[in-house]
Amino acid sequence: MRVLGVDPGLTRCGLGIVEGLPGRQLRMVAVGVVRTPVADDPQERLLSVQTEIDQWLADWQPEAIAVERVFAKANIKGIMGTAQASAIPMLAAARLGLPLGMHTPSEVKAAVTGNGRADKAQVTHMVTRILRLPEAPRPADAADALALAICHLWRSGDLTRTGADTANRIQAAEQAARAAAPNRLAQLHAQHRTATRSAAALGARGATTTRRTTP
Amino acid sequence: MRVLGVDPGLTRCGLGIVEGLPGRQLRMVAVGVVRTPVADDPQERLLSVQTEIDQWLADWQPEAIAVERVFAKANIKGIMGTAQASAIPMLAAARLGLPLGMHTPSEVKAAVTGNGRADKAQVTHMVTRILRLPEAPRPADAADALALAICHLWRSGDLTRTGADTANRIQAAEQAARAAAPNRLAQLHAQHRTATRSAAALGARGATTTRRTTP
Repeated sequence: MRVLGVDPGLTRCGLGIVEGLPGRQLRMVAVGVVRTPVADDPQERLLSVQTEIDQWLADWQPEAIAVERVFAKANIKGIMGTAQASAIPMLAAARLGLPLGMHTPSEVKAAVTGNGRADKAQVTHMVTRILRLPEAPRPADAADALALAICHLWRSGDLTRTGADTANRIQAAEQAARAAAPNRLAQLHAQHRTATRSAAALGARGATTTRRTTP
Repeated sequence: MRVLGVDPGLTRCGLGIVEGLPGRQLRMVAVGVVRTPVADDPQERLLSVQTEIDQWLADWQPEAIAVERVFAKANIKGIMGTAQASAIPMLAAARLGLPLGMHTPSEVKAAVTGNGRADKAQVTHMVTRILRLPEAPRPADAADALALAICHLWRSGDLTRTGADTANRIQAAEQAARAAAPNRLAQLHAQHRTATRSAAALGARGATTTRRTTP
């Protein structure tokens, strides 16, 4: 699975693409930062960010997008611009039909460092180690974008495990059903069909992911 | 001049189109509200708002877009969604090369009611009167979108007046120059050429506006 992580912003918008599967070594595909001049009109800056993100989507064909969830906090300069910038990858995901993950800064920090309150240096350090990069990605927005993609991949792994659990639960129900009365069995079969469809959907997604993951 | 006013939001996004010239009777061309289900994913809601706004731009061909400037205030639920929604008309303006006006709620209220702290009922009342509507536009988001367009038209009028003032100042400088020494005159002529270019740019914009205004 290939994920585009976006750390939204107008002055600096971090972009990072990571691919891999849960439980396997992850690989950095691309990393960068879109910068737009503070002197430009905000709408021109948004359009520049959109143009660049669209180019990344076309060039790298990610299968999912992970965006930092922005919170309203009083007295934070530029928070509205950040929120507006976050709309760009959200719209792209909806337009292209790609799964979108919105992860809070704490979730991202917890995923890559084990500590939801880790500082930027720790996040950058862990991103560098996890992706086995020869040097730390700079600036911090670039590292944050990669951290978002890593967080998304690992949390998707949790979803896949849930899918496997569902399949196991179905199998157990089937075994129990074999010893049960015929009409009870029919009932369980009906339940099974429904449940299998969900598990198959999850499985199919996992398979697509595996197939499209290239070293 | 035809202006699209956008009161951004995900649950309700007000859209209103007003045309006219500063100092003349304004006319409502269209008014409406885009609603998106709260249960939908935020990115799907943003895409629905974008699809609708794009349709309005194609149908009504406004020459300018006016958007409410959203402020970060703590504890306001949905403010991030509002900020994200506001990115949509901003991106559209940049993409289409249309002038964009971002007006604060106080500016809009002051423009249509004379009071920057007017309540929603007063704004709706004045919008209804200014546009000579047979009945008040509902809901309030629709009236707010029309108020934004009115505010933009009237403030653009102020800009045009500034352009005229510049031209008058140039003429006065020219007259003074005729009585001055030749090298001082040359200096003023150089200033004049620069100033005329700005005035001409403003004038040209005003002319385009006049030409494209249809009853």
